[in-house]
Amino acid sequence: MLSFASDYIEGAHPAILQRLIDTNFEKLSGYGDDRYTESAKEKIKAACGCPGADVWFLVGGTQTNQVIISSLLEANEGVVAADTGHVSLHEAGAIEVTGHKVMNVPGHEGKIWASDLKKMLETYYGDDFHEHMVAPGMVYLSHPTEYGTLYTKAELTAIRDVCRAYDMPLFLDGARLGYGLMTPGTDVTLPDIAELCDVFYIGGTKVGALCGEAVVFTKNNTPKHFLARIKQRGALMAKGRVLGVQFDTLFTDGLYFEIAKHAIDMSVILRGVFREKGYSFSINSPTNQIFVILDDAKAAELSENVVLNFWERLDASRCVYRFATSWATRKEDIDALAELL
Amino acid sequence: MLSFASDYIEGAHPAILQRLIDTNFEKLSGYGDDRYTESAKEKIKAACGCPGADVWFLVGGTQTNQVIISSLLEANEGVVAADTGHVSLHEAGAIEVTGHKVMNVPGHEGKIWASDLKKMLETYYGDDFHEHMVAPGMVYLSHPTEYGTLYTKAELTAIRDVCRAYDMPLFLDGARLGYGLMTPGTDVTLPDIAELCDVFYIGGTKVGALCGEAVVFTKNNTPKHFLARIKQRGALMAKGRVLGVQFDTLFTDGLYFEIAKHAIDMSVILRGVFREKGYSFSINSPTNQIFVILDDAKAAELSENVVLNFWERLDASRCVYRFATSWATRKEDIDALAELL
Amino acid sequence: MLSFASDYIEGAHPAILQRLIDTNFEKLSGYGDDRYTESAKEKIKAACGCPGADVWFLVGGTQTNQVIISSLLEANEGVVAADTGHVSLHEAGAIEVTGHKVMNVPGHEGKIWASDLKKMLETYYGDDFHEHMVAPGMVYLSHPTEYGTLYTKAELTAIRDVCRAYDMPLFLDGARLGYGLMTPGTDVTLPDIAELCDVFYIGGTKVGALCGEAVVFTKNNTPKHFLARIKQRGALMAKGRVLGVQFDTLFTDGLYFEIAKHAIDMSVILRGVFREKGYSFSINSPTNQIFVILDDAKAAELSENVVLNFWERLDASRCVYRFATSWATRKEDIDALAELL
Amino acid sequence: MLSFASDYIEGAHPAILQRLIDTNFEKLSGYGDDRYTESAKEKIKAACGCPGADVWFLVGGTQTNQVIISSLLEANEGVVAADTGHVSLHEAGAIEVTGHKVMNVPGHEGKIWASDLKKMLETYYGDDFHEHMVAPGMVYLSHPTEYGTLYTKAELTAIRDVCRAYDMPLFLDGARLGYGLMTPGTDVTLPDIAELCDVFYIGGTKVGALCGEAVVFTKNNTPKHFLARIKQRGALMAKGRVLGVQFDTLFTDGLYFEIAKHAIDMSVILRGVFREKGYSFSINSPTNQIFVILDDAKAAELSENVVLNFWERLDASRCVYRFATSWATRKEDIDALAELL
Repeated sequence: MLSFASDYIEGAHPAILQRLIDTNFEKLSGYGDDRYTESAKEKIKAACGCPGADVWFLVGGTQTNQVIISSLLEANEGVVAADTGHVSLHEAGAIEVTGHKVMNVPGHEGKIWASDLKKMLETYYGDDFHEHMVAPGMVYLSHPTEYGTLYTKAELTAIRDVCRAYDMPLFLDGARLGYGLMTPGTDVTLPDIAELCDVFYIGGTKVGALCGEAVVFTKNNTPKHFLARIKQRGALMAKGRVLGVQFDTLFTDGLYFEIAKHAIDMSVILRGVFREKGYSFSINSPTNQIFVILDDAKAAELSENVVLNFWERLDASRCVYRFATSWATRKEDIDALAELL
Repeated sequence: MLSFASDYIEGAHPAILQRLIDTNFEKLSGYGDDRYTESAKEKIKAACGCPGADVWFLVGGTQTNQVIISSLLEANEGVVAADTGHVSLHEAGAIEVTGHKVMNVPGHEGKIWASDLKKMLETYYGDDFHEHMVAPGMVYLSHPTEYGTLYTKAELTAIRDVCRAYDMPLFLDGARLGYGLMTPGTDVTLPDIAELCDVFYIGGTKVGALCGEAVVFTKNNTPKHFLARIKQRGALMAKGRVLGVQFDTLFTDGLYFEIAKHAIDMSVILRGVFREKGYSFSINSPTNQIFVILDDAKAAELSENVVLNFWERLDASRCVYRFATSWATRKEDIDALAELL
Repeated sequence: MLSFASDYIEGAHPAILQRLIDTNFEKLSGYGDDRYTESAKEKIKAACGCPGADVWFLVGGTQTNQVIISSLLEANEGVVAADTGHVSLHEAGAIEVTGHKVMNVPGHEGKIWASDLKKMLETYYGDDFHEHMVAPGMVYLSHPTEYGTLYTKAELTAIRDVCRAYDMPLFLDGARLGYGLMTPGTDVTLPDIAELCDVFYIGGTKVGALCGEAVVFTKNNTPKHFLARIKQRGALMAKGRVLGVQFDTLFTDGLYFEIAKHAIDMSVILRGVFREKGYSFSINSPTNQIFVILDDAKAAELSENVVLNFWERLDASRCVYRFATSWATRKEDIDALAELL
Repeated sequence: MLSFASDYIEGAHPAILQRLIDTNFEKLSGYGDDRYTESAKEKIKAACGCPGADVWFLVGGTQTNQVIISSLLEANEGVVAADTGHVSLHEAGAIEVTGHKVMNVPGHEGKIWASDLKKMLETYYGDDFHEHMVAPGMVYLSHPTEYGTLYTKAELTAIRDVCRAYDMPLFLDGARLGYGLMTPGTDVTLPDIAELCDVFYIGGTKVGALCGEAVVFTKNNTPKHFLARIKQRGALMAKGRVLGVQFDTLFTDGLYFEIAKHAIDMSVILRGVFREKGYSFSINSPTNQIFVILDDAKAAELSENVVLNFWERLDASRCVYRFATSWATRKEDIDALAELL
């Protein structure tokens, strides 16, 4: 079966597996107190152009969102997110279980607008009884978004400016950050993100690692006792080396960017194939996720040879399916798919 | 430097790493819905002699304790554990953060006694105002304990009988279970544990895996919507294959038991070395953890060549240090240590 | 100063205060285990036409919503409510702090529609990955709503039918229930509510008591260990008599309905005064809350003699203000207000 | 039936009920924003000799403990309390449900010792892995304790000194504070408590009010957004006047102290009666709670005419029963009891 179902259907980049083997019998301390974790942190700080950053490694995306958001919010605060955001919809209540509300603003192709955010804040602070309401305490956005779209630097800056005006941290979920950074036409770089955001993470799980997300606090703003908070959420890996070795490999000689670029190159080809064959897209996503409209007959036919990832029904006879490329996508698989379209 | 600091200072058994490489480019569904996870579950059920069991894979021990305990307790209930238990002391409040009390009974070399448990329950139910108190809702024990000790089958049965009388689930933390099962003289087998406990886990992190704990519900008693609860705690791995492949390897041809036995064989030798050299132990632990009493001068001398794991101060001139063997311990390292003692 | 700012600006109905005095020196057990609490429960069950109901007394509305909702939901579930509902907006996150999401459907003049609810449920259960999402676990509605509107019996029945189809409890917040029941034209009676809802409460705080809400479980469905859950939320009054005596008084000789009717009679007069003087309303609320549009000059003028309760800005020169009548509203105050309009 | 079962078996002091009647029809703002609440705060600050204090009113003791403790602790912290403390045993997990551990030190007749506290802190900070453990974040003590005992000023000062050395707030639960302050021989005054503690509360429920506890933050240390936190815990009374009027009455012309003194005078007489009749006490409590040892035959006989409050079984033939006096205890009831002893 062919599959473009997601960007996490394969294991890890071979260089990572080799590195795990090479370092396997070194006796190292647990919980991230090892030389590879240390080295990975240094390389990430350099890549971010942010020598003062504080870097931590966690296992997965929902866990990372939970740990960061619950650590940054005061008890009476909620996190502002797009109504289509991952924390709003697809984390089974991982934010609420920590006692905090996810406060929705409209998602515009997955993105939040500074103007909506500003309006929410003005409404809140304009209400004499706002202490009877949850206070907007931080902003969550994903880049790329769940719809594969990207913010421009101007859009991010506008959101950051609102955050700063209201003294709220800005948090960027970069589960697919590598793909976003390598997309042609984007004007947002990793150092830009480090400068604009208070905290963000660089996704490993979806960009070549077995697991792992690198959290970056950029403003000397790590929550107090952050290690204890990670431990308390069950998120502290005993063999922290597993994360350290992976990120050290990804950030050696630009591997992370190189494999992300491969995924984007493949997505350009795949998008071209669909376009050429006369298919249209439900959303104009420039990154590694392609949202293709298929009529039901074609979908049924394709599904005999291709694993299809259903996204949503469009109308009585057509649905949207997601096709994702990744660091592991092979050109010959795209060719094989083209034959079937 | 020599190190016997813990049983998680190395990476993973080479067979596991090789298997990750062999399966790396298979395109598999995420979240544990893959063939290796399925196969691992079947093999574990067989090893437990419990075909009706329900098996799940999580990443680490504290996470597993948190997910299981918070899923099994009613809101007004707490978990009963030894005052020396991992959930009582060393999880940074991972149980309390889910809203539940850890209710302590005395630890007797790390073990709880059925009689103490019974007394706690009689006191609780004998109090007319017990609805003003936290109800004992389940029992947690570790086997081996944090002190390397083991329950006998009779002791476990007695605890199980009290649990049954009060309709409380019995949960066994088996972070080091392999080592316990392969200890000479134990009369507790894996099928015994499956029969006596309502839920337990088979530790991978400390017994040869990069990470991973296999949770076994033995009595058709998986909490409803357990997948959602795992997701909600940030504990659902996107690449579930990472856990599936590891446990499938560990439970193929008895590898798990074989490598655990190696650790125990090494611990017998190491314990003999200490004894022979005239050292004594603070506790009579039969498994892979050895608690050795060193005077301060000797400890200072040793620490130039050996990573020492401080356990506790005994008196003005002596401390206890933990030496652990593992699946990865080499005989030549023990010999080298012997030279230094 | 005149004031129609809310329905809780006075103390308690004099009969309640007298009863507190009359019973003051009786020596009674605490925590609701007293004869007055018992008597109040019986009278409420009779008024509900629901002899099998289980009645409890709590102190205030937010507390009651928190205790009920957190007790009825499973960990992976959220409560469905109008986006304008009290639990959605004005409880400072009292639901989320218990770990649960408030899942919004659109409020239509404060009311939820069965059709919106059905659509939410179909979307949820139609999604193959719904275990990655919060499950809709119960429905919250208020009657009267926060906008003073009322459900018809047909509307409530339609919602109840959807709830039943999906096995979800229906919970009705009756903080102002008395006023709703005594509104001319409503076809919803207290026994109807007891039949249609799984749990609801009869508001005391806003209908003549110093404090207190009477929770009614109608379907033999009181959560297990409900007393412990109340205690755990800090909601168990030591002197439970304070609530018992108040509700016993309110449900003796129909006092609750009589004083609620007075408030509605006054609201009819007050609404007539506004209409006669040419004012218009932002919403057509039939109960004791009147939402009047005032231009800014008039509001400034009025506020010299009347406490105004600002609701929302309508446009550049006009705002909405809430005027509420209550059990304590005097006709002469309405006359005095009329002079000023 | 005679009853000395507790100090909350009657309603409220008549002056309070009269004041509620006198102020009943004043139209006042809700949520504590009224003149009586304001006046009560001023009088309490004066009584505490602490003009800079910040005073808040809550409904009951468990609620107050929950709101204060959850507001003062960081996520990774727990509250230190005697193992016999109210928060440790009799609040159904009201602290844990907010995510925090109650960390026990031994209770010595209900009191904690500075030395035990110091030892706990030294152990915690002396452990290299203390970030894997819950951090002691504040100290809770009750005065009088649950056993009716009192701290001396020297004992409180010693505890305060440890707290200060470790930068931990000291919180005093004064549910029965009035009785403690009026006990002959105590050297602890209300201004002493205001000086030594960071936060404490003056109990109303057990000292003459229908309900209510006055929380005093003494060091310009009110948690941020404390109103929102109160609201979020369901602890904000709509008719805040009910608490304001009561405390304003209690702190007018020293009523609080006067009625507390009455209870203590009665307890001296009652204790004398028991002693004279040859009974002994399980604990030497100087305040309004008397713990009397009764043999089972006598208890059975007495219980025909007296409501007995069972405390604990002492041995095969004797139990301890609690007799409490209060602001409402009448000398003739003591005389009647004496007849029966």
